[in-house]
Amino acid sequence: MTEVDLNSDMGEGFGPWTIGDGVDEAIMPLISTANIATGFHAGDPNTMQRTVELAKRHGVAIGAHPGFRDLVGFGRRHINAPAQELVNDMLYQLGALREFARLQGLRLQHIKPHGALYMHLARDEGAARLFIETLRRLDPELLLFCMDGSVICRIAQELGQPVVREFYADRDYDASGSIVFIRRITALDPEQVADKVLRACQEGVVQTVDGKDIPIAFDSVCIHSDTPGALALVQRTRARLDAAGIAVRAPR
Amino acid sequence: MTEVDLNSDMGEGFGPWTIGDGVDEAIMPLISTANIATGFHAGDPNTMQRTVELAKRHGVAIGAHPGFRDLVGFGRRHINAPAQELVNDMLYQLGALREFARLQGLRLQHIKPHGALYMHLARDEGAARLFIETLRRLDPELLLFCMDGSVICRIAQELGQPVVREFYADRDYDASGSIVFIRRITALDPEQVADKVLRACQEGVVQTVDGKDIPIAFDSVCIHSDTPGALALVQRTRARLDAAGIAVRAPR
Amino acid sequence: MTEVDLNSDMGEGFGPWTIGDGVDEAIMPLISTANIATGFHAGDPNTMQRTVELAKRHGVAIGAHPGFRDLVGFGRRHINAPAQELVNDMLYQLGALREFARLQGLRLQHIKPHGALYMHLARDEGAARLFIETLRRLDPELLLFCMDGSVICRIAQELGQPVVREFYADRDYDASGSIVFIRRITALDPEQVADKVLRACQEGVVQTVDGKDIPIAFDSVCIHSDTPGALALVQRTRARLDAAGIAVRAPR
Amino acid sequence: MTEVDLNSDMGEGFGPWTIGDGVDEAIMPLISTANIATGFHAGDPNTMQRTVELAKRHGVAIGAHPGFRDLVGFGRRHINAPAQELVNDMLYQLGALREFARLQGLRLQHIKPHGALYMHLARDEGAARLFIETLRRLDPELLLFCMDGSVICRIAQELGQPVVREFYADRDYDASGSIVFIRRITALDPEQVADKVLRACQEGVVQTVDGKDIPIAFDSVCIHSDTPGALALVQRTRARLDAAGIAVRAPR
Repeated sequence: MTEVDLNSDMGEGFGPWTIGDGVDEAIMPLISTANIATGFHAGDPNTMQRTVELAKRHGVAIGAHPGFRDLVGFGRRHINAPAQELVNDMLYQLGALREFARLQGLRLQHIKPHGALYMHLARDEGAARLFIETLRRLDPELLLFCMDGSVICRIAQELGQPVVREFYADRDYDASGSIVFIRRITALDPEQVADKVLRACQEGVVQTVDGKDIPIAFDSVCIHSDTPGALALVQRTRARLDAAGIAVRAPR
Repeated sequence: MTEVDLNSDMGEGFGPWTIGDGVDEAIMPLISTANIATGFHAGDPNTMQRTVELAKRHGVAIGAHPGFRDLVGFGRRHINAPAQELVNDMLYQLGALREFARLQGLRLQHIKPHGALYMHLARDEGAARLFIETLRRLDPELLLFCMDGSVICRIAQELGQPVVREFYADRDYDASGSIVFIRRITALDPEQVADKVLRACQEGVVQTVDGKDIPIAFDSVCIHSDTPGALALVQRTRARLDAAGIAVRAPR
Repeated sequence: MTEVDLNSDMGEGFGPWTIGDGVDEAIMPLISTANIATGFHAGDPNTMQRTVELAKRHGVAIGAHPGFRDLVGFGRRHINAPAQELVNDMLYQLGALREFARLQGLRLQHIKPHGALYMHLARDEGAARLFIETLRRLDPELLLFCMDGSVICRIAQELGQPVVREFYADRDYDASGSIVFIRRITALDPEQVADKVLRACQEGVVQTVDGKDIPIAFDSVCIHSDTPGALALVQRTRARLDAAGIAVRAPR
Repeated sequence: MTEVDLNSDMGEGFGPWTIGDGVDEAIMPLISTANIATGFHAGDPNTMQRTVELAKRHGVAIGAHPGFRDLVGFGRRHINAPAQELVNDMLYQLGALREFARLQGLRLQHIKPHGALYMHLARDEGAARLFIETLRRLDPELLLFCMDGSVICRIAQELGQPVVREFYADRDYDASGSIVFIRRITALDPEQVADKVLRACQEGVVQTVDGKDIPIAFDSVCIHSDTPGALALVQRTRARLDAAGIAVRAPR
């Protein structure tokens, strides 16, 4: 690999509240793609406006990061809803962000569902298909961020919606190539995270929780901004990528 | 007048709940412009999707009807917020609706703030100016629905944002030409409402609560769909306009 | 049976919105127990205050009807949350209603979870046990409304929390004695519903969707107020119970 | 003064978010009264449960800290609502907290409205009177935290509801004895804040923004936990009170 995208979730505060270390301003200059929270699980119109402007200032590509309508649960709790309702929830949030982008003369690069909604679409054939079919009509060039091998990734590829496959720098993988979701994220060692990213970029493998190496295919590295110590993870990873001559660049 | 716009607030349910008589499907074919609730004071993504489709089916022009973030108060309670916050709230809602329109291949014709936000912008110079300046950059052809003589109307005209001035068929006017806002709307007589509209269209006057006639300038007649008996008001008004040879037609 | 409780969900409006036919005032005099919505899936402080006063006026026993925090979904969508979070959500809502009862000099008779939360507790051992253990410490005389044979019913009986077992007049039963949940409730024939209730009271059986009779054990008949035509169902059922000499009376 | 109450707002996080420095656990052992956020402007059932338990562990008296229903605005924005609606909102929140106290075998000591609601009741005769009249019927011994000379303080004293008058250590006073509300709180010098508190306790005066001393009457010192550096303010103030032989003790 000579270049890779580096994405992070931005604008995940709500009103006066912050999550994680509240370090969007320090992380933004180091990444190439920002997933901006759109108000259902985090984010609010004021935060969205400021985050779009922050991304613009640093030339970072932006996309919508819609979640379940579950503010108190930060979109990490699955809600059992019909596919059409979930698609409508995503359209609503996507449009809301698009308006702030429009005001800044920016185009949305991508959409990346958040948390439990991301996982739901990674597994649920019906919801994933309806969502991709809707994107085909709505915005056939909008990139979908997803995991290689997930149901939604497969459907997007089948129907022609362009995908960006993610590698999760701050999550563990199991033998199936799925990430191991955990309820409470603890601080990670920046050097180990950077090692993991470099190895994935250069060798195309990641070590699973069982200690074995599995192949991993991806176009973008994700580091969550609400992980404690997230800034150090991004800084170290970015420095190591730079040093290795791997350019950090948005997919388009 | 040989033609006039007839607008009504549509999609003001929320989840499983209805407001007024819940008669959007019957009213939609009779009007030319629908103001669609955008989720902060009423409406939800599913209702917005269905309402946009309903409007499309009947060839009705659509616009965003954003309100204060006050679901339980139906956007009828003033919230003391900085102008930038209110503008951001409106952009968020405007974009959300625009996405559903985009999916249907429709353009948004207009924006009409709701309830207490409508009144706030009719009076507050700072908020009205920031909002109009933002519209100038964002969407200079988007029509603004407002009342002739209000602060926001004057600023829009000054800055070049096109306006559609409204006549409220189901509200009383005072001597200053302002409408008398009331907390609980009671049922009105359809014939009297239709009389009032016809007189306004044909003679350009309305009788105030004090019994005097004042001149009234407008491009669109508004009948609220949450008024009890709203359907009969719209039906009777529409029939009388038709009979008088006044075409009911969206501003563009 | 010489007496039976007749319960209905009351106060399920939200702000200016109504659900079903909006006929709480007509239903209240006909029932003996009101399950009052507590704000997370329906209801709001003003509606709760008015509903408690309405119940008091008619001598109807009151209880809390807490739901998932899912207003737009009316608490009918399951949310995957840890047991402690769900218990805390229920305590919050229970306390909120208790305060309005306190202001009227009333005691809460019972608690009855709503919709998807009712079903979750009917099946989930961990959540049901934590909830009942919490009730044992909090209010050991508070009646729990539940279905005979459900997990929560069994645990309550085991731990000593008093239960009131319900018979659902307006829902279908399957061969296992479970009710068949449906997404959209359609209007029912009042006479058939009344027949079903009378038969359950007098013979202790109900016919399942498969056409067989199964035994049914209950202390209270539930008729949902958001079923279209709910008032006619309650009126007819009440009239038939009166005529049969079965007193409609709250459990305590 | 030989003793004084020291109160702080606790439990003002929401879901996964924190406000200020998120240091409730460090502040709680240093104060005698905790005002616990009750979910409308901040706080949620899980946070309330944990905060009540934290207060109990440290023997801190607890009370409800209800706010306007304005999560995104943190209850700092005035909402124009009828008095009865505001009273109902407060009852709802008060009851919710009371239930968590009940579970821990604790009684609520007091109620202290938050932010813009605090200011509204300090000025609005109608709302303040309805609220106090309601408290007289509901819980005549519940302490009301308020400012000396405010409308609500006067009405409470007139009607017999017991009051605790506050001194705001981290806010400026104007010549009228009112505190100067500001939108964004900046860090303060702990020694200056402690000086101000000591002087108020020992001499009964505070210096206004105009540089003059005015007399100040109070029973409790308030330090906001969302002020940046709040912990240092509380630590220094507490240490100085201890050194001066002024016991920090809840009003009852």
